[in-house]
Amino acid sequence: MSNLKTDLKITSTLVNPPTDSKARVSQFMKQLQDEICSGLEALDGEGKFKEDSWERPEGGGGRSRVIFEGNLLEQGGVNFSEVWGDKLPPSILKQRPEAAGHRFYATGTSMVLHPRSPYVPTVHLNYRYFEAGPVWWFGGGADLTPYYPFAEDASHFHKTLKQTCDRHNPEYYPVFKRWCDEYFYLKHRQETRGVGGLFFDYQDGTTNQLYRGFNPAGKAASYSQEVGEIEARSWDSLFNFISDCGGSFLPAYAPIVERRRDIKYGDRERNFQLYRRGRYVEFNLVYDRGTIFGLQTNGRTESILMSLPPLVRWEYGYQPEPNTPEAELYERFLKPQDWANWEGQ
Amino acid sequence: MSNLKTDLKITSTLVNPPTDSKARVSQFMKQLQDEICSGLEALDGEGKFKEDSWERPEGGGGRSRVIFEGNLLEQGGVNFSEVWGDKLPPSILKQRPEAAGHRFYATGTSMVLHPRSPYVPTVHLNYRYFEAGPVWWFGGGADLTPYYPFAEDASHFHKTLKQTCDRHNPEYYPVFKRWCDEYFYLKHRQETRGVGGLFFDYQDGTTNQLYRGFNPAGKAASYSQEVGEIEARSWDSLFNFISDCGGSFLPAYAPIVERRRDIKYGDRERNFQLYRRGRYVEFNLVYDRGTIFGLQTNGRTESILMSLPPLVRWEYGYQPEPNTPEAELYERFLKPQDWANWEGQ
Repeated sequence: MSNLKTDLKITSTLVNPPTDSKARVSQFMKQLQDEICSGLEALDGEGKFKEDSWERPEGGGGRSRVIFEGNLLEQGGVNFSEVWGDKLPPSILKQRPEAAGHRFYATGTSMVLHPRSPYVPTVHLNYRYFEAGPVWWFGGGADLTPYYPFAEDASHFHKTLKQTCDRHNPEYYPVFKRWCDEYFYLKHRQETRGVGGLFFDYQDGTTNQLYRGFNPAGKAASYSQEVGEIEARSWDSLFNFISDCGGSFLPAYAPIVERRRDIKYGDRERNFQLYRRGRYVEFNLVYDRGTIFGLQTNGRTESILMSLPPLVRWEYGYQPEPNTPEAELYERFLKPQDWANWEGQ
Repeated sequence: MSNLKTDLKITSTLVNPPTDSKARVSQFMKQLQDEICSGLEALDGEGKFKEDSWERPEGGGGRSRVIFEGNLLEQGGVNFSEVWGDKLPPSILKQRPEAAGHRFYATGTSMVLHPRSPYVPTVHLNYRYFEAGPVWWFGGGADLTPYYPFAEDASHFHKTLKQTCDRHNPEYYPVFKRWCDEYFYLKHRQETRGVGGLFFDYQDGTTNQLYRGFNPAGKAASYSQEVGEIEARSWDSLFNFISDCGGSFLPAYAPIVERRRDIKYGDRERNFQLYRRGRYVEFNLVYDRGTIFGLQTNGRTESILMSLPPLVRWEYGYQPEPNTPEAELYERFLKPQDWANWEGQ
């Protein structure tokens, strides 16, 4: 993490995006969907994605791709969308008041995979781009949710994302990793959703403060001091960063799949996986801003809720038994850890 | 439904509750929990409730009772709680600004039952009482969620609740039935949660407008005219009404269980039940004010989420086939209907 940098006083003003910004980003988002789907089909070896194209009455549409009952994937969805309308919902305007009274444009690709084996982690990815009147921004991230976890896997996932970030700005990984830990947090369970990854929002290059929009209660002030200021960034540099992030998904995830897909499991592991999938549902319906944005903007419900697992259990008062792999998940993996620097066992 | 009543101009001011209000209501809420649990154990014939008592660090506590893997009930929870604290959460203060800056007290009993058979409906009940500074109010209701529905059952449930309401005030049933239809509505699915029942909130006897707190977008004005004004009601009359509502639960539900519990079913019906249970999860996590109140006030997560079903499925793009019992659920039962006046087939 960087220290307070009092010598940097760059304050940039927001530049206009390139004239072809929407076309460039939406083309990239479609391509990302294509690449991920091809990569996953190759990895699955059996399941094939089925595509549904849809239109949104208020403007725009998308293409949802879903895979069921594959060899690797019990269910997976990769959704591209490009929508526009009269106004952004209140939850976003609160963070971006400059967008009030303006039409908006939003495009993005999002993905959630629910593997069949409890040894293969669930994974989520979402990258998105907004324009609304005088403002534009990028957001997104990727995070990993294991059931029977391996430190080696958490570390591989984080190291891959960190390398990608570091090619663009050494400040990105420490900030966006921490943002992810705080965003994918189930307050009512006092657990992280999984081992995290990257998350960021409202990146428009102007602010010196990377964590704009990241204001966990009571933390903003000290966090601002800790991160300090960084140089202004151009639209192109942010677009390149997002593109590179998208491209790093398969290298971050596929090796984990290959290492764990053949581990044998029984009812105990399957039941625990179904139980833990309940946390995924709780997070997505109670906290997730992508889900809330979709439901608030009259999005396509089936595509928004494609992230929900195919089969889920809830169990009143469940507690893992001490000294079991299930207990280890809670004690070690559902708390923020410095996985990118993990070297040990 | 009543017509506009322009001749009624009673405007009462809020009276203080009796000095023993909290003790009386909490005793009733505990007794309601006892009665419902005994009645359900007798109905189940096999399962027994297990009790967990718990304390809330900020003040108060409760007793949760849960039944698993019974003959009738796959899972059921009946929860009594009595909590207090420094301030109500913002979602309630928005409706009751007079409570801002005051300590609050809340007590209630809530119940959700998930029967094993897809022919026996899921059912929910919740009655609650609040005091905060200068204001107090009662709220609650009960609603039925069938999977393979019968008009006769929906009608029995509504007629029983209507008789209870009518003993207290002829305006109650039409208003609270409609409020229920609008409250238990999944906007993102454009479906009611089930066949409804009663729902009401913020009942303190002062307002002439029974629907206080019931403000569906664009409807408040016309609804206010339609319902008109009614006479002021005392604390005791509201408490009696709530008590009577609580007592009407078993007579409203038990006959439905008896009629449907022995119907044979297979995988098709079970799969549809698990799929439809997903709607229950979506409603409770996205819309339900009891759940949101609990999570916002640092309530006991296991007790709050006791309402979630033991096993749930999601399926992308599911649509019932035309002319099937599953299609009939959507077409006839997931829309508001005048079940209390149903006489036919």
